[in-house]
Amino acid sequence: MDKKYDAKALAAFATGLFEAAGLDEAKAGTIGPLLVEADLMGHTTHGLQLCAPYLKALDDGTMEKEGGPQVLSDRGAVVTWDGRRLPGVWLTARAVDLGVERAKLYGTASIAIRRSHHIACLAVFLERATRAGCMVQIASSDPAVSSVAPYGGTEPLFTPDPIAVGIPTGGDPILIDTSASITTNGLTGRLHGEGKKLPGAWVQNAEGAASDDPAVLFTDPPGTILPIGGKEYGHKGYGLALMIEALTQGLPGHGRADPAEGWGAGVYVQVMDPTAFTGEAAFTRQIDHIVERCRANKPVAGGPPVRLPGQSAIAKRAASSSGGVALYPGIIDALAPWAEKYGLVPPVPISAS
Amino acid sequence: MDKKYDAKALAAFATGLFEAAGLDEAKAGTIGPLLVEADLMGHTTHGLQLCAPYLKALDDGTMEKEGGPQVLSDRGAVVTWDGRRLPGVWLTARAVDLGVERAKLYGTASIAIRRSHHIACLAVFLERATRAGCMVQIASSDPAVSSVAPYGGTEPLFTPDPIAVGIPTGGDPILIDTSASITTNGLTGRLHGEGKKLPGAWVQNAEGAASDDPAVLFTDPPGTILPIGGKEYGHKGYGLALMIEALTQGLPGHGRADPAEGWGAGVYVQVMDPTAFTGEAAFTRQIDHIVERCRANKPVAGGPPVRLPGQSAIAKRAASSSGGVALYPGIIDALAPWAEKYGLVPPVPISAS
Repeated sequence: MDKKYDAKALAAFATGLFEAAGLDEAKAGTIGPLLVEADLMGHTTHGLQLCAPYLKALDDGTMEKEGGPQVLSDRGAVVTWDGRRLPGVWLTARAVDLGVERAKLYGTASIAIRRSHHIACLAVFLERATRAGCMVQIASSDPAVSSVAPYGGTEPLFTPDPIAVGIPTGGDPILIDTSASITTNGLTGRLHGEGKKLPGAWVQNAEGAASDDPAVLFTDPPGTILPIGGKEYGHKGYGLALMIEALTQGLPGHGRADPAEGWGAGVYVQVMDPTAFTGEAAFTRQIDHIVERCRANKPVAGGPPVRLPGQSAIAKRAASSSGGVALYPGIIDALAPWAEKYGLVPPVPISAS
Repeated sequence: MDKKYDAKALAAFATGLFEAAGLDEAKAGTIGPLLVEADLMGHTTHGLQLCAPYLKALDDGTMEKEGGPQVLSDRGAVVTWDGRRLPGVWLTARAVDLGVERAKLYGTASIAIRRSHHIACLAVFLERATRAGCMVQIASSDPAVSSVAPYGGTEPLFTPDPIAVGIPTGGDPILIDTSASITTNGLTGRLHGEGKKLPGAWVQNAEGAASDDPAVLFTDPPGTILPIGGKEYGHKGYGLALMIEALTQGLPGHGRADPAEGWGAGVYVQVMDPTAFTGEAAFTRQIDHIVERCRANKPVAGGPPVRLPGQSAIAKRAASSSGGVALYPGIIDALAPWAEKYGLVPPVPISAS
């Protein structure tokens, strides 16, 4: 993490690569900055690390370049899209924007997307809604990938099934980024590659014995990532996984029951406009009170002050915007061949602090 | 758990008590059977055990008897009620029914309720929606009660913040009953009363040290119930708690920022009609596929078959409906003074197997 880069230069570089790979300006100009945004917020497995794999998917035709989503249903407060394997980052950003627009009309809006390509970091889409005063939930799953078993089972079935929630406040928004499983494919894959262990027994081997070694996921047959609650109360994470798979595959009507189409996502976006309930002031009054009581909450003996979800990410973003982004090692190297292929020059580090 | 009672006789008894306590036939006739339903499904802390405290609340005027909720907003797909401290079981059942009615019109519906009285067991309301082919989420919190600290903190702020989800399938519905915390006020209170320990380190003392002893919740200052993930990844449960408190207090515009009114609830109900997305058949096709793969999933070595959430509760209900309900000890005894006060005769056990 020693080299730092200018965030705007990175975003322009990624945007340039996506345009060179065949995406139009609107799509490339949405995806490049949002990947950098994930790095800015500290989500280093779901930021520019995805740029090279996305370029490969555009290159081999498994990510669609042209046109927009096909509208499968539009009932005002409910919209369903077939994403046609278009870039998921662009589709999700558009879905949140549409969700906000519809929530302003109907009070609430539910957008379901089938056959999106991968959507990267859910947390970066939340502020599109919170800036408009709306509360938003975004969930996704990848029906082509299985790495989590149902509680009590051993065979991979679900993805980690992330869900992110944005809540507007009188100050910085609350940005929640969680999932139905204890950890992610990204982190276990990275730690396995580096020969490292997990911070706890967050996975199990193929027989169902809990382990902190991500290597158990790469045996044949493979082990699985444990649902939230692990061996002790993993029925809680299992329930959340079923909820998220129903929202992201059941509602859009495409998923594990269909032939696998490769790396992608089913997506569910829910936007709620507080003005349709009891008003923005009434909403913010409650949320700000809770935020204040979280901040003032006496920390665990010897521990740091209580933080709000998103607080650390927003602080990192502010620091990175002025002082530069510390990319995870290897990311710029992985993009070098693509830069060469498309005749672009990678940004140079602004510091080696 | 030795004595068993006829479920219909119990429901009639509870209904009779509520009518005698001043509720009209519609309210009493909704609450009595739904409390028994919780016992039938094995949720023994949230069934008839609540009958005596509800009767006391009706008697001392802290639970409102007359009239219906005040409509604070109605935007079609969004409805907000002031529950006026009416019985929460009746209000929530009505909210789910309204949610289904509105979801059939708009595809999705969000109902928020402020100032409900206690709503008991969330799982018993789900089938009102799944029977109509709809997916439903119900969340609640009690702004007058604090027993869970934010992650990293030690002072009680949140309630356990339950969320229940009903998903229709081609067979029995999936009935998910989970929460943002590892355990509940009901279970910790019961085990503390019986001098027992929890199955794991699910609570922490007032300094923030993890413990399996519910007694740490009853010291001064008190300890707290841990969020899902406990000490290791409790930021996940903390995020869910903030989401649920925003849905159940922020949207209805009443909560911890207001003076405490006593035992009650903020409630949020979300209903989604699959026919407005890609149709019931497309939805069920995905869900039934996942259900089948859960059931067929190879169990942990030496463990029982993988179950679906709700499967055990539905089986218990079927067994209890024919063989009688095994009430948790003390429940009928607690109702004896009320039966005497209102001149009703408690049901007698049908067996002592």
